[in-house]
Amino acid sequence: MKIEHFIAQSIGEWRSMRSGHSLAFQKFEDVTSQLVIETLSSNNNEVLKLLESNPTPETKPVCPFKISWKADSNWESSDESEVSSGSSIFVPIPTSNIDGLMLRSKGYAEAGESICKYNFLSCETLCLITKYEHSIAEERIWFASKHVRCRSSIIRTSNSKGILQTSFASEVRRLK
Amino acid sequence: MKIEHFIAQSIGEWRSMRSGHSLAFQKFEDVTSQLVIETLSSNNNEVLKLLESNPTPETKPVCPFKISWKADSNWESSDESEVSSGSSIFVPIPTSNIDGLMLRSKGYAEAGESICKYNFLSCETLCLITKYEHSIAEERIWFASKHVRCRSSIIRTSNSKGILQTSFASEVRRLK
Repeated sequence: MKIEHFIAQSIGEWRSMRSGHSLAFQKFEDVTSQLVIETLSSNNNEVLKLLESNPTPETKPVCPFKISWKADSNWESSDESEVSSGSSIFVPIPTSNIDGLMLRSKGYAEAGESICKYNFLSCETLCLITKYEHSIAEERIWFASKHVRCRSSIIRTSNSKGILQTSFASEVRRLK
Repeated sequence: MKIEHFIAQSIGEWRSMRSGHSLAFQKFEDVTSQLVIETLSSNNNEVLKLLESNPTPETKPVCPFKISWKADSNWESSDESEVSSGSSIFVPIPTSNIDGLMLRSKGYAEAGESICKYNFLSCETLCLITKYEHSIAEERIWFASKHVRCRSSIIRTSNSKGILQTSFASEVRRLK
């Protein structure tokens, strides 16, 4: 599957249920949120800025997109709930039909811009690996059906020896 | 990866954190549990009984095993916690190095014996598909590291059109 097809399938509004597992502390974090995934023009100012500040050997970006989210956090053993929101720009740069690089304006495990590697597994699952300063994030995203996406993540220490956290999200498309 | 290797890696005691997502009701269920995965002899009575009651075209079972669990259930919006426990026998019957059938004495989505199909994806992820009377369960199990396993599941309606529930478990080996 080409990255263009995967992104085209992902465009839309999604209702997400996400569970984070903190392995050392055996703590769960359950969050419901709203996601909007939309295409961006290749001439978009933020896309051009991201490309400028992250020079890569490959220089043919395709279908840049933006993910915006608004989350309701609900920590276990606490009555407090926080609302967080934000957005991130993504610019895929394929090296073949099944792999490539992806620029990201805001990291997942750590703040700041990041470059991740992506590849497709045989089951049309998109895998993203992002090396941050202090950690490595491995994400898998796949479609359970046309309107349901699953997304798992594993956050490792930067030496790859320890696993800090895992998470899993079920995303259901909001049909209009 | 052969099923024998995957099972050999899985033998031991595991501490599991599992989150279930009920998509229609947007409900989370977080459960911690203890798992024991152990090998069984091919001559074990329960293994022989399972083989007798589920005749298959392929007849070369390998490395039967048993999973026992003891769970602490903690439903959202309820102070009640239940302890559930049980065990299930599994008998893999390979048809090639990457796929085969697996007999199961107790189903995952529905009670009773079941026969599921398994196959390995390119990322050494074990996929299990089980057709029950009222539903179809798709499970993916993979090793994040030697001592951490991840397990996702999707429960569909038997006509495959609707997705009822998803779940994700992080399993950490108990080292002695």
